[in-house]
Amino acid sequence: MNTRRDFLQKLTASFIVFPSLSSEMLPAACTTTVDDGPKLRVAVMGLGSYASRVAEAMQSCTKAVLTGVISGTPSKISTWQSKYNIPAKNCYNYENFDAIKSNPDIDAVYIITPNGLHKDQAIRVAKAGKHVICEKPMAINATEGEAMIAACKQANVQLLVGYRMHFEPKTLEIIRMRKAGEFGTIRFFQGLCGFRIGDPTQWRLNKQLAGGGSLMDIGIYAINGSRYMIGEDPVWVTAQETKTDTVKFKEGVDETIQFQLGFPSGAVASCLSTYNMNGLDRFYLNGDNGYAEMWPSTGYGPIMGHTNKGELTYPHVTHQTVQMDEMASILLQGKQPIVPINGEEALKDLKIIDGIFAATQTGKKINLKL
Amino acid sequence: MNTRRDFLQKLTASFIVFPSLSSEMLPAACTTTVDDGPKLRVAVMGLGSYASRVAEAMQSCTKAVLTGVISGTPSKISTWQSKYNIPAKNCYNYENFDAIKSNPDIDAVYIITPNGLHKDQAIRVAKAGKHVICEKPMAINATEGEAMIAACKQANVQLLVGYRMHFEPKTLEIIRMRKAGEFGTIRFFQGLCGFRIGDPTQWRLNKQLAGGGSLMDIGIYAINGSRYMIGEDPVWVTAQETKTDTVKFKEGVDETIQFQLGFPSGAVASCLSTYNMNGLDRFYLNGDNGYAEMWPSTGYGPIMGHTNKGELTYPHVTHQTVQMDEMASILLQGKQPIVPINGEEALKDLKIIDGIFAATQTGKKINLKL
Repeated sequence: MNTRRDFLQKLTASFIVFPSLSSEMLPAACTTTVDDGPKLRVAVMGLGSYASRVAEAMQSCTKAVLTGVISGTPSKISTWQSKYNIPAKNCYNYENFDAIKSNPDIDAVYIITPNGLHKDQAIRVAKAGKHVICEKPMAINATEGEAMIAACKQANVQLLVGYRMHFEPKTLEIIRMRKAGEFGTIRFFQGLCGFRIGDPTQWRLNKQLAGGGSLMDIGIYAINGSRYMIGEDPVWVTAQETKTDTVKFKEGVDETIQFQLGFPSGAVASCLSTYNMNGLDRFYLNGDNGYAEMWPSTGYGPIMGHTNKGELTYPHVTHQTVQMDEMASILLQGKQPIVPINGEEALKDLKIIDGIFAATQTGKKINLKL
Repeated sequence: MNTRRDFLQKLTASFIVFPSLSSEMLPAACTTTVDDGPKLRVAVMGLGSYASRVAEAMQSCTKAVLTGVISGTPSKISTWQSKYNIPAKNCYNYENFDAIKSNPDIDAVYIITPNGLHKDQAIRVAKAGKHVICEKPMAINATEGEAMIAACKQANVQLLVGYRMHFEPKTLEIIRMRKAGEFGTIRFFQGLCGFRIGDPTQWRLNKQLAGGGSLMDIGIYAINGSRYMIGEDPVWVTAQETKTDTVKFKEGVDETIQFQLGFPSGAVASCLSTYNMNGLDRFYLNGDNGYAEMWPSTGYGPIMGHTNKGELTYPHVTHQTVQMDEMASILLQGKQPIVPINGEEALKDLKIIDGIFAATQTGKKINLKL
């Protein structure tokens, strides 16, 4: 149903996407192709603050477009509808979204809901025949992750996870330098990730919804970062939990966890995940011939970094814009990213997370088999 | 060939200490007073490379003077005699140095020998009625340290340990800021200390002489630093050892140890000690309202540091010069240093070292009672 209002909204939204295009050239919301090929048509599931950030960033995408929403809150749906010109037929709630199966305007669903809901939601999306993009952590443990991978395989859809740092230019430059041997043999990685969390009632502090505390939310950057910075998968993990506030951080919700990883080459990582310290967003990679340092290392940017050779000067890009365009190329054209972002990659992080939680509980070194 | 000295020198802007000092300006040996009071007359035991550095630095002391030497190598003694104008009657070897008891030109003996020899040597010095200054680590375990403290107490002499960073201006400024609450509640300390060690035949890689490997030599800076930076003594420790070269780093000689400390306030420390990584000399202190960072943090200087308020600009001082002058004031005038440097202080580090070794062997969290 087209109205003048719809048209004007379409015009506004589209102008954000292609500000230099004339009105005749504007793509309709559900147009499946533009000059340079097909676009990935994405429905976002869960309309919280990070989803809003993704939607805004997608307005600058050239290969991905927001075409649908899934939410349990009707008022959010209507806000998004008008903001992003989403037709009613592409709007779903958590009861009826399996019907997305018969919607030709949606190629993939980006799940941006609490961690504890990912598994069941992803399996339903897969069963509906749509590609699954899932925010990280992919799930709350490896068993759930494996179920998601199996479901996507069975449904013949792809499963990608929202590792936005895998596309960040300064991160990629450090990875390039490491691969080129510019740092020499890599010996040590340090990842310090954390902040002081506010509102104690948020889902991130609810064990059932979050699957844990800081580690699931922010510590995962150090886990994942240790792997792409060192370029290996760890073979053991040790971990120590510290809790100073048992009211805010209830049973199973970690406040601060230090963890250490050992890698096949003998390199080690020393990491910290916390919801109780300010300003921790630091990576440090040390090799025999050089080093790289990032601070901030995983925030929304700009990322700052330098190596023994000097400052990294790549311009800031909006992470979520690049991520969604790259995911479009991966899903539609089979592009291989420099650092994988598929379910198997995410499963490794979940296995490490399982190991960290086991190590904090048993106090023992946990051998990892990724 | 890499040695510890090479590494620390790399971090030193001015290797030659006071190159403009003429020989006429050098204080004569055995001078017992200057304008501002009595001088501490020091004999150095063990004439290796660090002892040479101390002797050079002492040429600029105003309160301490080198008056004697103890060595097992006659050629070293004669070199030092001519270089520092030391009379033959103030020269001893390891067999006869107990006779120092009747030497009125010596107030204190600075023991700069391999760690495994400290205990017996310190006890002999104490029995000779001279103050003991001992290079760190004070000994190779807490039991030895306790014996040294007891011997000094019984002999009514003082026991000081060569914690030169306790007098370093940028370090002291950070301690002042922390005490003044400028960083808010302290949550986290990180100490990364290490270098790639060279010559595999050196005593620092000999378990019997060194008492361990990197931890005794360089990791102790992170141990001690965690305490003076956080301002508390730890209550638990966990640790993980990694060895990639079992030829160079034999049984009981640690190559790389990661260790974590927990403090009564809930603050935690994450530290690394290594003989197999380049350029690790970094401290980072994080509080609710600010942070401090040092890099290099414990080399011979200049130390570089900044806080959230900006760069620390205190001028470089030769650590060993200040240390020896301050030790003179402590021993002769009862001055109280900002951070203690006595045997009891050093014993705490030894207890932590014992805990770290126990933790690497058992894989368990070790509760500390300092």
